[in-house]
Amino acid sequence: MRTVFWEDDKVKMIDQRILPARFEVISFSDHKSVARAITDMVVRGAPAIGATAAFGLALAGFESASLTTRELIADLQAAAATLKAARPTAVNLAWAVDRVLRIAYSVKGSADDLRAAVLDEAQKIADEDVEINKRMAEHGATLIHDGDTIIHHCNTGALAAVDWGTALGVIRTAHEQGKKIHVLVDETRPRLQGARLTAWELEQYGIPYEIISDNTAGYFLKAGKAQKCFVGSDRTAANGDVANKIGTYMLALAAHDNGVPFYPVVPTSTIDLSLAHGEQIPIEERDTEEVLGLEFKGERVTPKNAKARNIAFDVTPNRLVTAIVTENGIAYPPFETSLQKVVLGE
Amino acid sequence: MRTVFWEDDKVKMIDQRILPARFEVISFSDHKSVARAITDMVVRGAPAIGATAAFGLALAGFESASLTTRELIADLQAAAATLKAARPTAVNLAWAVDRVLRIAYSVKGSADDLRAAVLDEAQKIADEDVEINKRMAEHGATLIHDGDTIIHHCNTGALAAVDWGTALGVIRTAHEQGKKIHVLVDETRPRLQGARLTAWELEQYGIPYEIISDNTAGYFLKAGKAQKCFVGSDRTAANGDVANKIGTYMLALAAHDNGVPFYPVVPTSTIDLSLAHGEQIPIEERDTEEVLGLEFKGERVTPKNAKARNIAFDVTPNRLVTAIVTENGIAYPPFETSLQKVVLGE
Repeated sequence: MRTVFWEDDKVKMIDQRILPARFEVISFSDHKSVARAITDMVVRGAPAIGATAAFGLALAGFESASLTTRELIADLQAAAATLKAARPTAVNLAWAVDRVLRIAYSVKGSADDLRAAVLDEAQKIADEDVEINKRMAEHGATLIHDGDTIIHHCNTGALAAVDWGTALGVIRTAHEQGKKIHVLVDETRPRLQGARLTAWELEQYGIPYEIISDNTAGYFLKAGKAQKCFVGSDRTAANGDVANKIGTYMLALAAHDNGVPFYPVVPTSTIDLSLAHGEQIPIEERDTEEVLGLEFKGERVTPKNAKARNIAFDVTPNRLVTAIVTENGIAYPPFETSLQKVVLGE
Repeated sequence: MRTVFWEDDKVKMIDQRILPARFEVISFSDHKSVARAITDMVVRGAPAIGATAAFGLALAGFESASLTTRELIADLQAAAATLKAARPTAVNLAWAVDRVLRIAYSVKGSADDLRAAVLDEAQKIADEDVEINKRMAEHGATLIHDGDTIIHHCNTGALAAVDWGTALGVIRTAHEQGKKIHVLVDETRPRLQGARLTAWELEQYGIPYEIISDNTAGYFLKAGKAQKCFVGSDRTAANGDVANKIGTYMLALAAHDNGVPFYPVVPTSTIDLSLAHGEQIPIEERDTEEVLGLEFKGERVTPKNAKARNIAFDVTPNRLVTAIVTENGIAYPPFETSLQKVVLGE
């Protein structure tokens, strides 16, 4: 089953906010609700929100009563702006929306032809995402050896994409190749995507794992008890600086300090060649309740009036990155040239 | 009010497991319950568990029906073993117990004289702890400048000691000197001593703070938004390797990577000159429910059958440590000689 899909003229997605306690699929019939679902993290993960936004734009086409392609395109442009504003850091959101818009501009025909073309392109993005993830996974799995213990941050599995996953997809493929793997799952505060979603996925795949607090990754790396780190990326700059879930930078530091390879697994759609380096990537700050709302044995953990900061992403500088896995192959330093090559085929 | 104290022939302590939701003082009248309270973290923090164990040994004296000092000393030795086994990493536990035992061995008089001497020494340890913390705080506060934003890990405040605190005591003294300080409070997974206890203490002192997920410290350090890191230590080796709450190593890496000073604040009773380096320090592994038992909106976060690892401490290598604050002054690298000097006055 896919994380997000089009069915009965609706966008449907697995509600990732309530996993693993409950498994529910929610239906959306207007693009504004889809944008809100992205903001609220019903769906998350760069590849997944790209496909979701594309489907959201398709919905916008059917919502619009416009009879001319010109009016319809104006409606799609307004919807595109709403969808793009849902979250700032993952570049896939803009990438997918722009790709669908480009198709819309190129259609010669009626407004209904345009609606159909937009949906068709959204569906293509979703289908390609699965295929791209599997190609990435094949490349990435060559880096994993039998017996490896791997530290994984956040969730980058089937739930973070349309299906299969990026970093977790690599681990899954290596597992299916018969390699014995153990995964140390960073719980990934504050949203706990590791403890919630990655653990849940690994249970389904039968891959042995243990959840650790993010603080504990350094201990295992220093003790020589982890051989690789695999993470995803929401946006990678032209120089190989990697924006990813908060905590990735500290994990990369600990890997680097102990000579453990650190591999981001990133579809080329998340590589933003327009940004020279990672400091130019916009970083989202979210509601502090995600930090403060923790409970233990039914009781809230923080003082009643506590204040917090909730930065959702950080940037790992390229000097800490061993190699970057993409669907077109593995890019090694210097990333300025190798990323250009995997993205543009140059 | 003190974190742990002797009253009405009982050891009383603030229950730190239920703060900040509720403030309760529990009474203990036998040393085995005191040992269990240390294991269960009713009381935690190296200086606090030292004083607690000393009072526990005093209790054991009064529990014993022995009429001769020889029999009483045997009972105290058995109790000492129980108390020392309560937690492995903080060296204060053994230090305080051994100090009280040494007094017991030296008493010339009746069994009751010995009981009184043991209690007297335990009380001295508690009283000295407060005075030592205040001296450390004076030294440490010279490192803090007006306007500093400080990252703090775990809880090292009044609750981690008999009173005042170590790293947080430094911050408190700087605040009382009129320096404007902002504290970024690492929540400190898995036990959340930062989010629970440090936030609660800072509220009492009127020191401005924000709670951050441990993952976020790297972001603020890299962004140049934090000027100092202050932490405690459960045991520091002769070479300046610092064992402290899990996550300290990753915080130190992030500080070092950004040229931000990293200061452990450690009473000399926590410096273990018998260990050449930090890899010799025993590291506690605790119940995985501390990692897995998180709830959010009344629902458990992790999958039902999830496995975890719960390593309670890590060792920060001396190369990441800027200076070590003690009650006898500030030790700078090379720590092999400077720590010897502050501990032995050589």
